[in-house]
Amino acid sequence: MAAYIQDVIMLVGDSITQRGFIPNGFAQKLSGVCLQSETGCSQPRTQPIFEKEVLTKRICSQFFAKQHEQQHVPKVRLLTIWYGANDSCIPPSIQHVPLPTFITNVTTLVRKVTSPSSPHYSPVTRIILITPPPVNTHQRAADLATRDPPKLLDREFEVTRQYAEAVKDVGRKEQVPVVDMWTLLWDASGHVEENLSEFLEDGLHLNVKGYEIVYDNLIKTISEHYPELHYDNLGTAFPLHFEIDHSNLEASLQKRAV
Amino acid sequence: MAAYIQDVIMLVGDSITQRGFIPNGFAQKLSGVCLQSETGCSQPRTQPIFEKEVLTKRICSQFFAKQHEQQHVPKVRLLTIWYGANDSCIPPSIQHVPLPTFITNVTTLVRKVTSPSSPHYSPVTRIILITPPPVNTHQRAADLATRDPPKLLDREFEVTRQYAEAVKDVGRKEQVPVVDMWTLLWDASGHVEENLSEFLEDGLHLNVKGYEIVYDNLIKTISEHYPELHYDNLGTAFPLHFEIDHSNLEASLQKRAV
Repeated sequence: MAAYIQDVIMLVGDSITQRGFIPNGFAQKLSGVCLQSETGCSQPRTQPIFEKEVLTKRICSQFFAKQHEQQHVPKVRLLTIWYGANDSCIPPSIQHVPLPTFITNVTTLVRKVTSPSSPHYSPVTRIILITPPPVNTHQRAADLATRDPPKLLDREFEVTRQYAEAVKDVGRKEQVPVVDMWTLLWDASGHVEENLSEFLEDGLHLNVKGYEIVYDNLIKTISEHYPELHYDNLGTAFPLHFEIDHSNLEASLQKRAV
Repeated sequence: MAAYIQDVIMLVGDSITQRGFIPNGFAQKLSGVCLQSETGCSQPRTQPIFEKEVLTKRICSQFFAKQHEQQHVPKVRLLTIWYGANDSCIPPSIQHVPLPTFITNVTTLVRKVTSPSSPHYSPVTRIILITPPPVNTHQRAADLATRDPPKLLDREFEVTRQYAEAVKDVGRKEQVPVVDMWTLLWDASGHVEENLSEFLEDGLHLNVKGYEIVYDNLIKTISEHYPELHYDNLGTAFPLHFEIDHSNLEASLQKRAV
């Protein structure tokens, strides 16, 4: 019964996106500023969709509306795509996705939205790619050793770096801006793997300090590439109470055009 | 382009609902548990819709889908309705809504959903009413005095109590469970108005400690009245990676039925 009065920000990714909804995580802060900005409630809100593997070709057709359905559903104004942290698992992990397949999958996901020949073509949607964070294998190995039963290390520092580079390549080829979390965190850690623990919970997932870097750079990228989507530039779906024209109530209470 | 794979929890209310999205606010925690529960991401998510006044008869027809549209839009599994804090403003405040009108408005909003003759009838939607918190007039007056220009006190303790009582009456008459925040906070403050500052930011809006009481009692009410909607009982929209049947991939990757 929910009719659509608000556009959405869609966050597609793995558990690093999912955990972005912890207090002061990047997704929580993103929905926060869109709702709490000085001008009141704004239109986009976050809609997280999680996959544990990039199986995008099969799944995304279920969460992207086809063109003929788009009139019934909310516009996705911004789509973030953040994969690579799980796909870069090393064999025999069942999460492993070979690098060429990973590149194809991310490219396919972008083109689903950007290609005019795609059934899911959505010219109103802006995209930002995010690279996987560097893995701290020392911290990750220690964490896996505490599991019951203990698990062996399933990621390599250098392999995750290659998947991050691949995301940047896709960004260049598809002309989509990239928040390069790999490099941002690596630089912030002074190029010392052990120092990554300042930003990682368990060697793999970000802590609040890591999410702060995602959030700040996502806002920076929005400002630079899609300023119309910055929270300062988003209006409210309905007028605020002091903006209501009581002499013309019916018209004044209509949802505002985007 | 966002097709619907997730049902929603819809939170309708004023700025006390809106601010529920601060870190550890009730709305943030509610979306958090629905996304972070042990079983992974769950289906409902929050969709806040704010009004500064109860003008529900005019506005709600825009955010509630009509019956013939319901097939295209997400199901609202849970609807919280939390008004009274602004409507109980005393004249000449432009936010003032007379008590009988307030009762009619809240009743109308409930019946829009529950009445089979309503164009927005939605039998799948469960409703919870929330009473406005008690106002701490000492704290509120001090806050308003710091405004530029200073403002006079716009609420009375006893009047807000009457609006809270009215919400409980609507709940009884419409057979909808009520989270009685007025009484919960009044009891927690030892029936001393000044002590409410422990739970209120500015005499009117809740702080994190106040939101904790909303959240805990909302979950308790869900458990008691709508256990199928407790986050422990919500499945994920898609299978988790270790649940995927690789021998039957196509079927295994379909969105799960609710």
